[in-house]
Amino acid sequence: MEKEKYELRYQYVVGILKAKINIINEQLSREYGREIIREVSSRLKKPDSIHAKLLRKDYERNFAAAKKKLNDLIGIRIVCLFLDDVYKVAEMLQKQSDVEVIKIKDYIEKPKKNGYMSLHMIVEIPIYLGEQSEIKRAEIQIRTSAMDFWSVLDYQLIYKKNVSGAEEVAKELKGYSEEIAALDKKMMKLRNKIDKI
Amino acid sequence: MEKEKYELRYQYVVGILKAKINIINEQLSREYGREIIREVSSRLKKPDSIHAKLLRKDYERNFAAAKKKLNDLIGIRIVCLFLDDVYKVAEMLQKQSDVEVIKIKDYIEKPKKNGYMSLHMIVEIPIYLGEQSEIKRAEIQIRTSAMDFWSVLDYQLIYKKNVSGAEEVAKELKGYSEEIAALDKKMMKLRNKIDKI
Amino acid sequence: MEKEKYELRYQYVVGILKAKINIINEQLSREYGREIIREVSSRLKKPDSIHAKLLRKDYERNFAAAKKKLNDLIGIRIVCLFLDDVYKVAEMLQKQSDVEVIKIKDYIEKPKKNGYMSLHMIVEIPIYLGEQSEIKRAEIQIRTSAMDFWSVLDYQLIYKKNVSGAEEVAKELKGYSEEIAALDKKMMKLRNKIDKI
Amino acid sequence: MEKEKYELRYQYVVGILKAKINIINEQLSREYGREIIREVSSRLKKPDSIHAKLLRKDYERNFAAAKKKLNDLIGIRIVCLFLDDVYKVAEMLQKQSDVEVIKIKDYIEKPKKNGYMSLHMIVEIPIYLGEQSEIKRAEIQIRTSAMDFWSVLDYQLIYKKNVSGAEEVAKELKGYSEEIAALDKKMMKLRNKIDKI
Repeated sequence: MEKEKYELRYQYVVGILKAKINIINEQLSREYGREIIREVSSRLKKPDSIHAKLLRKDYERNFAAAKKKLNDLIGIRIVCLFLDDVYKVAEMLQKQSDVEVIKIKDYIEKPKKNGYMSLHMIVEIPIYLGEQSEIKRAEIQIRTSAMDFWSVLDYQLIYKKNVSGAEEVAKELKGYSEEIAALDKKMMKLRNKIDKI
Repeated sequence: MEKEKYELRYQYVVGILKAKINIINEQLSREYGREIIREVSSRLKKPDSIHAKLLRKDYERNFAAAKKKLNDLIGIRIVCLFLDDVYKVAEMLQKQSDVEVIKIKDYIEKPKKNGYMSLHMIVEIPIYLGEQSEIKRAEIQIRTSAMDFWSVLDYQLIYKKNVSGAEEVAKELKGYSEEIAALDKKMMKLRNKIDKI
Repeated sequence: MEKEKYELRYQYVVGILKAKINIINEQLSREYGREIIREVSSRLKKPDSIHAKLLRKDYERNFAAAKKKLNDLIGIRIVCLFLDDVYKVAEMLQKQSDVEVIKIKDYIEKPKKNGYMSLHMIVEIPIYLGEQSEIKRAEIQIRTSAMDFWSVLDYQLIYKKNVSGAEEVAKELKGYSEEIAALDKKMMKLRNKIDKI
Repeated sequence: MEKEKYELRYQYVVGILKAKINIINEQLSREYGREIIREVSSRLKKPDSIHAKLLRKDYERNFAAAKKKLNDLIGIRIVCLFLDDVYKVAEMLQKQSDVEVIKIKDYIEKPKKNGYMSLHMIVEIPIYLGEQSEIKRAEIQIRTSAMDFWSVLDYQLIYKKNVSGAEEVAKELKGYSEEIAALDKKMMKLRNKIDKI
């Protein structure tokens, strides 16, 4: 029961956020005359993954604790083609008067130790359902297409930690993260040049 | 420009309302253990249709007047299978704390002169876009599948007013409206009987 | 494994048939200047339902027997608004040179004993997957929107056979089937009148 | 009329090819335990673009010539994450017994002069519509996500040929094509390493 209600609310929050992201995409695409957002996807953190995180963070392991402590029960991923578009989308999200940005972690400016890049925003929006309104939290990850490619390999490594050979692979993957960052910058600069000629 | 912004806002209002209707459908379907909403569609009133209505109502014919005076620039249609489900959906919509119901016209209880049946709700919802919030108005039509079938013929007659033969046809169509109303009631009652055995 | 391959093939057959139905809908809608098909849905017969049918028909109960003996493992439902459109769609399907119609059962012309109405076609189409081609069978049900409404109650009665009160309800439901048949005919005739004025 | 029929047929060919690509994706994703195809899109060559190509190639400029001479009236684009997946998808397409591969141009193995990379296949499939069957031709472009990113800038340059500064930009873009090719190879090799640990 509790779980069903949780899923319904999740679908609703995702529905509202996607409606917002769609209109932001339309607005920016018209303003800049090009495709800004390539892909929007969403996921609800699964029970075993919630459990693992509560354990890791040494929190109580129940549903109430999960809702209170974890910011990423609801996750939205936005993939852009170009680096600067990531920030354009983030800025538009911050301007929405009913979206409160709780925290921004710019893992593009300052990647994670393993090389992971993405702009993370923890946001809160009010949802109106039936007679009450509630504040709901979600994590929005915005990244380039190239960063998204990289993260596929990064994700596969999660399950191979502490395995012989993993360290060497992780080091190599980190190197590619830097190459991707450099490539994204060069492609963006070249796009600016093309716009000007 | 003005028109483009209008379309964007329309898409957004429709997106928010559809997210609401989806969750209402999920909630009711789970509660009653059957499909409640068959179909949700939306339309933006077209310029020539806006113009015609402003003319008919003797309003000024400009965009500002349209936005101020016409309630049905944004239209949402919800089709249910059973008669009582129409009212269940309407009730849930009224309970939404951010939806203000401005007017209800129950053309099921009291059909239009030509036989048209549907429950019409004019609603207002706040939308938050960029830095400002705005109140937006929409007309939601809720009807049964059988009423929806009927309205297809009714709609075709609109374009044939004052044509010889139209009056007779209209009278016949009105008679079928009554048959459909009776059928919807009988089917609903039979469904209740089946639920009980 | 066997089951997975079966599902993949099913999705493919459904994909091909839906592509055909879409183009038939486009062609007819353009020709007649109105919406012809309201809804297309599909389902794969579920294991327990397959098992029950094999048992009922006294066939061997294994996957090979199911594929050989049962015609309706793959089911497609097409819902039209008007009675004559059901036959227009059926005729177009028969004209497809790669679709072989194995059997037609016209439960509209001659409803089932309980009042059930629908046009059933068992069809075979060749599918080309990897190196081999195979002949696949599917059941296509075509009906009006009103018949589809009726069948929802009929479907609920299946699970209440031999229950006290079921017989009376079934009789009442059968009566409504006749009303719906009459209504569909009258609405079709009226549509023809409207077309002519 | 001619144009409408052309569009209908196009939608149908695209529908059939997409059904094939979906099932290929399912099969490969199950076999390799990862996402193989990221995105499938399609386009119908537009009249002005057809006209320009007929002119450029010095062909007669009419619809019959276009259908006979141009291979890419119907275009399908498939985007994979990894380099080897491009070839896996191509191989599966070639195995389809009703798909005849007329020509393969491997612009990945041997990029175009400007740096453009993609695997192009001209294919023919029979379509069965109404009473006749016809052979239809389409161009399928298969590429990696990184190549797809690159091609966005390449596409923008098309409209700026012979403009001052374009040559320098084109040279720079070509350099990035080589970087992308190198990156795609490294990421694929690293994925293989991860699979093995």
